[in-house]
Amino acid sequence: MPEPASDPATTYSYLGPAGTFTEAALKQVPEAQGKTWRSVNNVGEALADVVAERSVAAMIAIENSIDGGVSATQDALANVPGLRILGEYLVPVDFVLVARPGTTLDDVRVVNAHPVAYAQTRLWLERARPDHEHLPATSNVAAAVALLPAVDDAGPGSVGPLADAAVAPPGITDHYPLEVLARSIGDNPNAVTRFVLVGRTGAVPPATGSDKTSIIAELPDDRAGGLLDMLEQFATRGINMSLLQSRPIGDALGRYRFVIDLDGHILDERVADALLGLKRFSPNVKFLGSYPRADREQVTVVPRYDNTAFVEARDWLRALVAGEPGD
Amino acid sequence: MPEPASDPATTYSYLGPAGTFTEAALKQVPEAQGKTWRSVNNVGEALADVVAERSVAAMIAIENSIDGGVSATQDALANVPGLRILGEYLVPVDFVLVARPGTTLDDVRVVNAHPVAYAQTRLWLERARPDHEHLPATSNVAAAVALLPAVDDAGPGSVGPLADAAVAPPGITDHYPLEVLARSIGDNPNAVTRFVLVGRTGAVPPATGSDKTSIIAELPDDRAGGLLDMLEQFATRGINMSLLQSRPIGDALGRYRFVIDLDGHILDERVADALLGLKRFSPNVKFLGSYPRADREQVTVVPRYDNTAFVEARDWLRALVAGEPGD
Amino acid sequence: MPEPASDPATTYSYLGPAGTFTEAALKQVPEAQGKTWRSVNNVGEALADVVAERSVAAMIAIENSIDGGVSATQDALANVPGLRILGEYLVPVDFVLVARPGTTLDDVRVVNAHPVAYAQTRLWLERARPDHEHLPATSNVAAAVALLPAVDDAGPGSVGPLADAAVAPPGITDHYPLEVLARSIGDNPNAVTRFVLVGRTGAVPPATGSDKTSIIAELPDDRAGGLLDMLEQFATRGINMSLLQSRPIGDALGRYRFVIDLDGHILDERVADALLGLKRFSPNVKFLGSYPRADREQVTVVPRYDNTAFVEARDWLRALVAGEPGD
Amino acid sequence: MPEPASDPATTYSYLGPAGTFTEAALKQVPEAQGKTWRSVNNVGEALADVVAERSVAAMIAIENSIDGGVSATQDALANVPGLRILGEYLVPVDFVLVARPGTTLDDVRVVNAHPVAYAQTRLWLERARPDHEHLPATSNVAAAVALLPAVDDAGPGSVGPLADAAVAPPGITDHYPLEVLARSIGDNPNAVTRFVLVGRTGAVPPATGSDKTSIIAELPDDRAGGLLDMLEQFATRGINMSLLQSRPIGDALGRYRFVIDLDGHILDERVADALLGLKRFSPNVKFLGSYPRADREQVTVVPRYDNTAFVEARDWLRALVAGEPGD
Repeated sequence: MPEPASDPATTYSYLGPAGTFTEAALKQVPEAQGKTWRSVNNVGEALADVVAERSVAAMIAIENSIDGGVSATQDALANVPGLRILGEYLVPVDFVLVARPGTTLDDVRVVNAHPVAYAQTRLWLERARPDHEHLPATSNVAAAVALLPAVDDAGPGSVGPLADAAVAPPGITDHYPLEVLARSIGDNPNAVTRFVLVGRTGAVPPATGSDKTSIIAELPDDRAGGLLDMLEQFATRGINMSLLQSRPIGDALGRYRFVIDLDGHILDERVADALLGLKRFSPNVKFLGSYPRADREQVTVVPRYDNTAFVEARDWLRALVAGEPGD
Repeated sequence: MPEPASDPATTYSYLGPAGTFTEAALKQVPEAQGKTWRSVNNVGEALADVVAERSVAAMIAIENSIDGGVSATQDALANVPGLRILGEYLVPVDFVLVARPGTTLDDVRVVNAHPVAYAQTRLWLERARPDHEHLPATSNVAAAVALLPAVDDAGPGSVGPLADAAVAPPGITDHYPLEVLARSIGDNPNAVTRFVLVGRTGAVPPATGSDKTSIIAELPDDRAGGLLDMLEQFATRGINMSLLQSRPIGDALGRYRFVIDLDGHILDERVADALLGLKRFSPNVKFLGSYPRADREQVTVVPRYDNTAFVEARDWLRALVAGEPGD
Repeated sequence: MPEPASDPATTYSYLGPAGTFTEAALKQVPEAQGKTWRSVNNVGEALADVVAERSVAAMIAIENSIDGGVSATQDALANVPGLRILGEYLVPVDFVLVARPGTTLDDVRVVNAHPVAYAQTRLWLERARPDHEHLPATSNVAAAVALLPAVDDAGPGSVGPLADAAVAPPGITDHYPLEVLARSIGDNPNAVTRFVLVGRTGAVPPATGSDKTSIIAELPDDRAGGLLDMLEQFATRGINMSLLQSRPIGDALGRYRFVIDLDGHILDERVADALLGLKRFSPNVKFLGSYPRADREQVTVVPRYDNTAFVEARDWLRALVAGEPGD
Repeated sequence: MPEPASDPATTYSYLGPAGTFTEAALKQVPEAQGKTWRSVNNVGEALADVVAERSVAAMIAIENSIDGGVSATQDALANVPGLRILGEYLVPVDFVLVARPGTTLDDVRVVNAHPVAYAQTRLWLERARPDHEHLPATSNVAAAVALLPAVDDAGPGSVGPLADAAVAPPGITDHYPLEVLARSIGDNPNAVTRFVLVGRTGAVPPATGSDKTSIIAELPDDRAGGLLDMLEQFATRGINMSLLQSRPIGDALGRYRFVIDLDGHILDERVADALLGLKRFSPNVKFLGSYPRADREQVTVVPRYDNTAFVEARDWLRALVAGEPGD
C-alpha cells in the first residue's frame, strides 16, 4: 500500500487502521498530536518502522486486563534490539455492535469479531443473540470494515460481506458509515488495555517519582530455585514488582524468560542497584526502559530504600576504606 | 452438526476435526483407543463435555514451546470447577504446506493458516514465497479444509476457496484429498506442544515416581513480596517448579493468578506438605491434579525431602508431645 | 557436705546458697513453695540432680540482659539427655555493697565479687571507690560469705577475710550478719536475668496462649546458606524467634549449634509444623520444651498461621486426595 | 605496676603475664618480634592502650572452639570506637598440670585454674584426681603463679599458696620454677583459641585473596524477620558467613546485636556491595576490619560474584543510562 512520504522524525506507527484502540492510545500522547500517524498491520511492522527509522516511535498493546500479556509484543521486545519503552497508556476496552445501515439486532446471525474482542463480548452476545455464529476477523476494525461492500483493491478476504454485524471499538463510526446496534457490550466494564510507546534506544528520561522500569531476564541454568533468587534481587531493595510473566525462550519446552515491570526508575538508586544485581545474576537481561506510569501514582519507598540511604551508605563505605571511623 | 448418540463413559472430546495435533495427542492415550472420539470446536466445548458428562475426558492443548501457554486453556481450568488433569502428552509441531491437487508451489500467493501455525512457519514462507499473503483460519484443519469446494451445510466462512495453500498438520492428507507441496516447514524443528487430558474430579491416581502436580493460586492482597513467599513454600520442601505463568484474574489490571506445575505427586509427602502451606497462604488455590509426566523422567529428591524424612519427623514429633525423649 | 535425706519428688535444686538470684527465681514457682530446696554449686550439679532423680526440677540461669547467654547452661541443655524446660522466670539484677558491721564506705579498698556481678557494678565502684581492687569470687553469695570469719569446715578458699566489702544480691542480709553500705549499685537499672526451671522429659503441658518453645539445632554440612534455610522454616509459618544464639559444637572451630526460642507451643499447629520442617532439615535437633512465658504476654498470630488455617488445609488436602472437589 | 617508658609506636599490649596463650598468639606476629610487649590484665585495658596510643596494637582472644565467643572481647569491640582488627591467629589449647617442685600427682587435692581452663580439663582431672576441688583463678598464669611463695608487693589474693597444683599453658615453665605433673590434659585435643590483633582505625590493607571481614550489626526494630533479611544481604552476593553470634545490646532482654565474620575483603566488590546493603538495612552497623585469615585458605567465588561481574554490571548500567544499547 503506497503512502505519501512522511518525515520519520515526526511519524508515529500504530496498529491501524483509524478507529482501533491503539489509535485511541496514541491520542493520549501529547507530542504525537498533529504529527503523521502511520497505520501498520501488526506489532512486528510497528517495531520494524522504529528500528528502520521510518518512524520515531510505535504504539503497541502489551497487556489486557482480561486476556493477559500480548505474547507477540513481549516476544518482539525480547528479540528486537535497539528499542526502549518511552511511556505507557491505558485505554478502557469498550465495544459497540455495528452493522450496515438498516440492519436491526434481530437480523444478526453471523458476528464478525477479532477473537480477543469476541472473548470479551461473548456473554453479552449469547444473551442477546443466543443462536449467533462467530466469524473471526484479523482486527477489530477489519471486522467492521468487512461489513461494507468490497472495493477494487480488496485483499484476499474481501469477497463481499459474510457477516451481519461486527464487534468494534466505539470510534469506528467516526470513520465508516455503520450504525451502532448496541453500546458497551463488553462483559467486564472495567476491562482495560495497556499500551506502550516504543522508540529507539537513547538516554533515559529523568525520573518523575511515578515511574516504571521494564526488563526481560533469563534464569541461570545451573541453579535450582533460580526464580526465587532472581526475585530476591528486588525484594532486598524494597522494590515492588507489578508484572511477572513467563514467555518461552523457544529453544525447548520448559525454558522461559521473564518479562518484569518494577516500580521505580533506573535513576532511582534502589532500582539501579537491583539492575546491577540482576545483571550479575542473569545470563541474559534486557533493559526495556524507565518511563512514567500511566496512572501517575507516586512510588512510595521506606527510608531504608530511598536515594539518601544509598548515598549515605556509599559515603560510609568510602570512609571505611580510607581509614576514617565510619561509626 | 448432529452426531450419532455415543456412550459418554467411552467418549473422548478433542479439538477437531480429524487431523489436528490434538487428535495426534489423543492417539497417545492407550485407554482411548477404539473408543468414541468427539470432535469439538474449542477448549470451552471440550471441557463442557466433560462437566456435562457427555464425555469421560477431553484432550486440550496447554502450552507450546514457541508460543507459550494457551491462555484459553489456563483460564478455563481456573474457572470451570470439577475437573482434574489425568495426564500430559507431547506432540512435535510439524507442518506441511498443502494445496488442491494440481497446484504447484509457484502458484501459491494466499496462504490460509491459523495465526499460531502461521507464526511458526512464517520464516519458511517468507523465504519460499516472499510475496505471499496470510489469510487467518480458525484452526489448522479448517485452514486446509477451506481449500476444498464448499459443501451444502457450509458454515458462514465457507464461500469457496479463498486461498491457494494452507499450513496444516502432516496427518491432514489421511482425511482430505489434498497434495503436500512442502514438508517440515516449521521454523523451529524442536517445537512441541504439550496437551493435557482432563477428566472429572475423582480420587487421585497412585504416584508413579515420575509425576507432575498442577495448581492455580492467587496471592494474598495484604502483603508485599507475596509471590516470593509463595514460591518459598516449594523451595523449603525441595520441590522444583517446571512452570510458572501469570494470568490476569480479570477484575483489574495488575491482579494475577499463577498457573504452576510442580515436580512430584500430591501423595508424595513433600508435595502434600507444600500444598498445605499453599492452602494456608493463598486466598484461592485450585488443585488441578497429579499425573504422570509425559517424559516419564523420574523425579529425584535429596533424602531430606523424601517420604521417609516426613514420616520420621512425624514420629519424632509424636514422641516429643507424648513425653518420650525424641533425641 | 552431707544433707538430710529428702524426698526427690518434692525437692528442687538451685544454685545456692540461700540468697542468690537463683533462689529468688525459685521463690516465683508456686509449686515449689514449702518443698525441699537443695542448694548446689553449678549448673552441672543441678541438672545431674534432675537426671538422677534426686530432685524433681532444677532452677538455672540461662540468660542475662547485659551479659548474654549463660554458656554453661546452654551447653548442658544441649548435651544432657532426658530434660525439659518447664517454665521461665525473670529476676531483676539488683546489687548491694555489703561489709562486716562497722565498716564504712571509705574503708573499702578490696571488693569481693563474682566476675559477672563485678562487670555489672564496675562503673558505680569506679565512681565511689576509684582506687578499689577486685577480688574475684565463685558466686555472689560466696563473695559476701567470705567477708565473715572462717568456720571449721571451711573450704580451700576460706583463709580469713581478704576483702573489705562484697557485691551481693539484696536478699543476702536475710541470711548473713552483714551491713549494707550502698543499695542499687548496678550500672544498668533494667538489668534482668532469665532463669529456667528444668525437669525430666514428660508429656508436654497444655498450651496457654502465652508460650515459648526452646530448641537446639545443628545445620546440615552439605549446604551453603544453611542458617538462612533453617530460619525460613520459622518465617514461612509466621513464627517469631525471640532468641538465636550460636554455641560451638566443640569438635572444630567454625562448627556451631544454635539455641533458639520460638514464640508459641509445640501443640500450636504452626510450631508443630515448623518443628517437623526443622527435624527434616537438621541433622541434629533437640526439643527442650514448650512452657509459659515469664511475661505472660499473649502470642498473636495472623489468621493464615492460626490453628484453624492448619486444620482447614488438612481437610482440604484430604478431600482432594479422596476425589472431592476441594474448591 | 610501674613499667619502663616504652615507644608506643613499637609497643604491643596483650593479656599477660608472659606464658599465656595470648603471648603465644603474639609470637605469631612477625612485625611484633623484637618490639616491646606490654602485659595487661584484661581486654578493656588492652584496647584502652590502643585507643590512648600507649601501644600500636593489642592481641586479644575472641573465640574458643569449645567455649565459644569471648563476650568481653565482642562487647568491647562493639562499644569502643576507633578500632580495627588487623589479623587473626590460632593457638592450640594445650594444658599442663604444674606444681611446686616435690609435689606428686597423688598429693594434689586443690587445683587452681581459670574457670575456662578448668572446664576444658575437668574430665581429665575427674579421672586422675576424682576427689579434687577447684579453686578459681583470674587467669591461667595467675593460677600457676599463686602456687609460689608470696612476694612483697603481693596483691590482695596473695596470702600464700592455697592450691596444690594449677592448670596452665605449656610455656609456663619457661618463666616460673614449677614442675609439670602431667602434659596435654585438655579434654579435647583439637581445642583451639582464635585471637585478633586490634589496632587503630586506618586505611584498610590490600586484599590477599584469603581474607575475612568482621562486622557488628543491629536489626531494625520495625520489622519481623529482620535477621533473615539481614542474612539475605550476604546470601544474595554469594558471601559465606563463618561466624554469627548474638550479644545483648544491654538495654532490654531480647534485644541483640550480631557479631558476624564474612569470607572476603571490603575491597572485594561483593563484600563492599553487601556492606552497602547492610548499612542501608541496619540502624547501627560497625565495620571491625578486613584482614588475612589465620588459615590462609583462599576464598573461592563463583564467577557471578567475582569482581569482574561487578565491574561489567556497572559498565552495562552506565551504558543503559547513557542511551547505549547495553544488550
